[in-house]
Amino acid sequence: MLQFTAQTSANGVLERDFIVGDVPGVLWSPADRSEPAPLVLMGHGGGTHKRWPAMTGRAALLVAGGGFHVAVVDAPGHGDRPRTAHDEREVAELFRARAAGEPEGPVVVRYNAHLAERAVPEWRATLDALEEVPEIAGPVGFYGLNMATAIGVPFVATEPRITAAVFGLHWPDALAEAARKITIPIEYAMQWDDEHIPRESGLALFDAFASTEKTLHANPGRHKDLPRFESDSAVRFFVRHLRS
Amino acid sequence: MLQFTAQTSANGVLERDFIVGDVPGVLWSPADRSEPAPLVLMGHGGGTHKRWPAMTGRAALLVAGGGFHVAVVDAPGHGDRPRTAHDEREVAELFRARAAGEPEGPVVVRYNAHLAERAVPEWRATLDALEEVPEIAGPVGFYGLNMATAIGVPFVATEPRITAAVFGLHWPDALAEAARKITIPIEYAMQWDDEHIPRESGLALFDAFASTEKTLHANPGRHKDLPRFESDSAVRFFVRHLRS
Repeated sequence: MLQFTAQTSANGVLERDFIVGDVPGVLWSPADRSEPAPLVLMGHGGGTHKRWPAMTGRAALLVAGGGFHVAVVDAPGHGDRPRTAHDEREVAELFRARAAGEPEGPVVVRYNAHLAERAVPEWRATLDALEEVPEIAGPVGFYGLNMATAIGVPFVATEPRITAAVFGLHWPDALAEAARKITIPIEYAMQWDDEHIPRESGLALFDAFASTEKTLHANPGRHKDLPRFESDSAVRFFVRHLRS
Repeated sequence: MLQFTAQTSANGVLERDFIVGDVPGVLWSPADRSEPAPLVLMGHGGGTHKRWPAMTGRAALLVAGGGFHVAVVDAPGHGDRPRTAHDEREVAELFRARAAGEPEGPVVVRYNAHLAERAVPEWRATLDALEEVPEIAGPVGFYGLNMATAIGVPFVATEPRITAAVFGLHWPDALAEAARKITIPIEYAMQWDDEHIPRESGLALFDAFASTEKTLHANPGRHKDLPRFESDSAVRFFVRHLRS
C-alpha cells in the first residue's frame, strides 16, 4: 500500500515522496500524465540515498527522454532509514579497510549481498504498490549501478515484471549465479581502470547474464569516473525496450 | 576538385553522386541546407561498396538524427572501381582460405593494410574537396567498421581535421601502432563471439587508442551480428562531439 506524503512540481516533472511500509521513496513523473506510462525502478549506490544527485539527474533524463515514471527508494540502512548494528559494523569495517589501503571488494561484496536479502522483498512490495498508481502502466525497467546492481540482479532474477535492466560496476562473486537466470535485455557499464573491481571481474559478471541481448559499455577511468553520456545511453535503452 | 554527377532527393535527404579524381562517392545531405552542417566520412566494409544497405541506412540515420552531411566513397578495388591483379589475388586467397575452413584473419589483415595504403591519400583528397562544398562546415567525423576501420585508423591518426570516430570489428595487428597516435574521442564496437576476431584481439585494439574518451561497446553474437542499435548509438556519439 503506497502513500504519497509530499509533492512538488518543476520543469515538467512532478516529484512525489511516498512510503510503502517503512520504506520511503520518491516517484518522479511527467507533469502531463494524461497517458499512462511505463515505470523505471532505480536504485542508488552504497553510502548515498534516494535524492543523491545521480538519482535526481538520471530521473530527470528518464522523464524528459522517455516520459517514464521513475521510482527510487532508500536502501536498508541508507538515507532516511535507520542502520542496524550489523550495518554499523560493516560500514566501520569498510572505512577501516579503506583507511588501511586494503581492498574494499571483500567487504562490499559481503555487505551488499546482505543488504540485497533485505532489499529484494522491499522492492517487490514497492513494485506491487506502484502498480496500483493509475498513471503507471506497461513494462517495467530496473536501473541500478554499484550497490543497486548487487540488489537489482537478485531482484530481477526473481521478478518477471522487469523486462529490461541497466546494471554495472560490481563484482561477480555473489551475483553470477543470479545473473545466469536473467534473460531480459541488459546494458552493463564497467570502468576499464576500476581501482576496486578488476577488469576480469567486471567481464565475468557481464558474461554471466543469460540474456541474448546484452551490451557491455566499458569506459576508461576509475570506479567513480563513469561518463555522464552513459546516463543518456540508459534512457535510450529503456525507450527501446519499454516504449516499442 | 569535386564534381557532382547526379542527384536525387527523397524523405528530406538530398543524395548526390560525386567524383574526386577517379574515386566515386555519394554525399547524403539534409534537404534543408540553409545552415552549414558538419560532415561525417563513412567507409564501407570489405567486399561491399558505397551504396551497400548498411551505408544508406546509417547515412539516413545521421542525416535525420544529426543533420549531418555524410560522404561514402568506394574503397580501392570495390564498387565501381577496378580491381588490380593484386586485388584479384588477395580476394581469391580469401575465398580459398574461407572454403578450406582456415582462419580469414591473416589474409584480411594483410590485404586491408595494403588497401589502406592506397585509400588514405584518397580520403585526404576527398576531404579536401568536400570542404569546398559551401554547405559543409565545422568539425569532421569518421565512421567505419571492418575494412573501414583498417583504412580509418591510419587515416585518422594522420588527419587532424577528424575530431571524433566510430571504429570496430578489426584486428590490432596492423593497426595498434597508428591507434596509439589517436587521441580524439572514439566509440569502438566489437562482437563478443566473433568467429574471426578473438576477444583478446578486439580488446587489444580498443586498448591501443590513446584517447582519454573512448567507449567499448561489446555485444554477443558473431562477426556479422552487430545490433542495429549500435548505429543509433553512433549517431548520438557524433551529435555529442560534432554538434556541441
